[in-house]
Amino acid sequence: MAKKNAFYAQSGGVTAVINASACGVIETARAYPDHINKVYAGHNGIIGALTEDLIDISQESSATIAALKHTPGGAFGSCRYKLRSFEENQREYERLVQVFRAHNIGYFFYNGGGDSQDTAHKVSQISQTMGYPITCIGIPKTVDNDLPFTDCSPGFGSVAKYIAVSTQEASLDLASMCETSTKIFIMEVMGRHAGWIAASGALARCEAGDPPHIIVFPEIVFDRPAFLEKVKQSVKDHGYCVIVISEGARNPDGTFLADSGGKDAFGHTQLGGVAPFVANMIKGELGYKYHWAVADYLQRAARHVASAMDVEHAYAVGKAAVEFAIAGKNAVMPTIVRNPGEAYSWTIGEANLAAVANVEQMMPRDYISDCGFDITAACRDYLLPLIQGEAPPPYENGIPVVARLKKIKVEKVLNSHFSV
Amino acid sequence: MAKKNAFYAQSGGVTAVINASACGVIETARAYPDHINKVYAGHNGIIGALTEDLIDISQESSATIAALKHTPGGAFGSCRYKLRSFEENQREYERLVQVFRAHNIGYFFYNGGGDSQDTAHKVSQISQTMGYPITCIGIPKTVDNDLPFTDCSPGFGSVAKYIAVSTQEASLDLASMCETSTKIFIMEVMGRHAGWIAASGALARCEAGDPPHIIVFPEIVFDRPAFLEKVKQSVKDHGYCVIVISEGARNPDGTFLADSGGKDAFGHTQLGGVAPFVANMIKGELGYKYHWAVADYLQRAARHVASAMDVEHAYAVGKAAVEFAIAGKNAVMPTIVRNPGEAYSWTIGEANLAAVANVEQMMPRDYISDCGFDITAACRDYLLPLIQGEAPPPYENGIPVVARLKKIKVEKVLNSHFSV
Repeated sequence: MAKKNAFYAQSGGVTAVINASACGVIETARAYPDHINKVYAGHNGIIGALTEDLIDISQESSATIAALKHTPGGAFGSCRYKLRSFEENQREYERLVQVFRAHNIGYFFYNGGGDSQDTAHKVSQISQTMGYPITCIGIPKTVDNDLPFTDCSPGFGSVAKYIAVSTQEASLDLASMCETSTKIFIMEVMGRHAGWIAASGALARCEAGDPPHIIVFPEIVFDRPAFLEKVKQSVKDHGYCVIVISEGARNPDGTFLADSGGKDAFGHTQLGGVAPFVANMIKGELGYKYHWAVADYLQRAARHVASAMDVEHAYAVGKAAVEFAIAGKNAVMPTIVRNPGEAYSWTIGEANLAAVANVEQMMPRDYISDCGFDITAACRDYLLPLIQGEAPPPYENGIPVVARLKKIKVEKVLNSHFSV
Repeated sequence: MAKKNAFYAQSGGVTAVINASACGVIETARAYPDHINKVYAGHNGIIGALTEDLIDISQESSATIAALKHTPGGAFGSCRYKLRSFEENQREYERLVQVFRAHNIGYFFYNGGGDSQDTAHKVSQISQTMGYPITCIGIPKTVDNDLPFTDCSPGFGSVAKYIAVSTQEASLDLASMCETSTKIFIMEVMGRHAGWIAASGALARCEAGDPPHIIVFPEIVFDRPAFLEKVKQSVKDHGYCVIVISEGARNPDGTFLADSGGKDAFGHTQLGGVAPFVANMIKGELGYKYHWAVADYLQRAARHVASAMDVEHAYAVGKAAVEFAIAGKNAVMPTIVRNPGEAYSWTIGEANLAAVANVEQMMPRDYISDCGFDITAACRDYLLPLIQGEAPPPYENGIPVVARLKKIKVEKVLNSHFSV
């Protein structure tokens, strides 16, 4: 194979470990100098390719690249930008080929969730549609854990650990306060369509009866009377009630609970915030004093409490992507495969990008308890390995050390400007 | 000194390290068996004393007591209950003496913030007013860092570290997303009257220009036009804007911004949530897409990312309280004293409970920048030592190991029931 440059970019909502995948890609590419010349990162995902906005990673030291492994966020900038089909927007594909050719790019590594794998799939078709040969590998990432074919999505394990740890800690706080003060704690978590993150709150439990007492999934229609009854019973049994609720909790009519709130001072419908909505519902119906938290970005950026297993997975899919490309594979995505057996072990598998794109993997019904407010033992068995191990970053001045990239831009060679 | 039992209790909002103070009290008391017989913990603070609801700590193993050092929340239950004055409620004081006498209690250790030190002070007067000799020592604790006389309050350093780390991590996330999506991240933090916690967001910075870009303090009246201008400028300069805002941010008329929100679906004024309020203000005025987080209990319970210095302080004030009592001191509270000099070092000092009670220590004006939206170098110098060092708990099954107490109750000997 002729020696070409590689393009790597990050796409969609970022995670605590997406840079560990970047580290896997870059370190592995550097280990194959006979195959891959330089790695160029797209500044802000595919937009970097379209606008010829490329970061020359060869200018970054090994130490900086190694530090990506413990740096949250997307070091090269991400984007929410979906390529339309070739028929709809041929102009974009022509531009991509123009940029790839100008910079001798023969490898395309795209690190993202379902939408991003769709983009990777579309780019992989350039070889046929446009006659420009490019090896195209998707790299899985999403905190929502909703990618198909892979046993789990890198990024999820660390959010799951954050939610489990935070739920445990906040529950201990609430238990101390409930005699004379707050009786309800509500933790709102991400996962608009899939309840995997909400489910991970259950991992806070060590013994039966431990909090959380209620989990609200987006997959199960919110049953208000049953919910309120369960809150009441929990306060009766334990003196308090800890609730983990998905931002995607839904009314029977399919609308989000979070959108049922009132108007703000400007007359806008209050966006987001299912936690305060449910808190007010409980206060109104049962009279209990409450506290609520919305962790938002904190949960998916919490590299300081990342799962070591997740970091390992994230690095491995980045490494595998490069190895796949060098082995001549194309239009595939490395996956995490859980081996059979009692003790958790895993290997790398692969999935075709065509099959991955735009498919969402929800919680199976048998991972949710009959009552709809808890997980089953099977779900716990699935989740538990994913939060194992700690991988704390180094600290300096009391805060984590993060990679500080030089981000030297590749000189533009195209005269034409392209706007997205 | 005759051998007496000791009473220890936790009061007010709990912290990530209040149990480290408990550990300091108990381990030190056990080291002086000639002076202190058993330690009884009040179940739910002073209420445990009033209702004769006592936990026999002598039944807990050394390993369990040692584990308190890495267990957040209040292991013995806390309370929000303020003793009224002797004149107003003589009945309560008579009951306390009854319980103390029945259980041979000669030491009273009360672990809490300003209100709790007021309770400790009132109990200390029992010797004079009721003729029952009791040695009474307050132990400082509060995440708000608003206790007077002490250089800092145990509990604060760990919240400060949590806020600094979380702000750093969320900022890296936002920086990745800002090109095509979210441009604003708002982090709401505790501290209704004092801005110490908000100030600690600034410790997320390594270099000039690093986020957060705006800090909103409760001590400074919220200047809406200046705030919006600063948001706009930050987005212009950096592409995004990170805001750390105190829940106690105030309008010019003294009302809380958080109370300026709309009504919820039940017609109640939306309580709490200055972050969503300000987010909507920015969206309405400037049109930027936002994310916001309200960490609530997560910040004060986050033992997993506690400051090692804070854990050390918390243990030390617990230990000092017992040493003070044995040395014959009374009606005092151990304090943290910062030694002069470039490098941070500290010793234990003492303050009179009479002077401590109900005094709040706000941010000095020269710790806040002239513009009112940042801290000064002097403030950074003050804060930085308090978040130094990591003291992670042990983990099992992916989550922190916490103390599981047997909580064996001391047999009640009084016939009379007392309701609070």
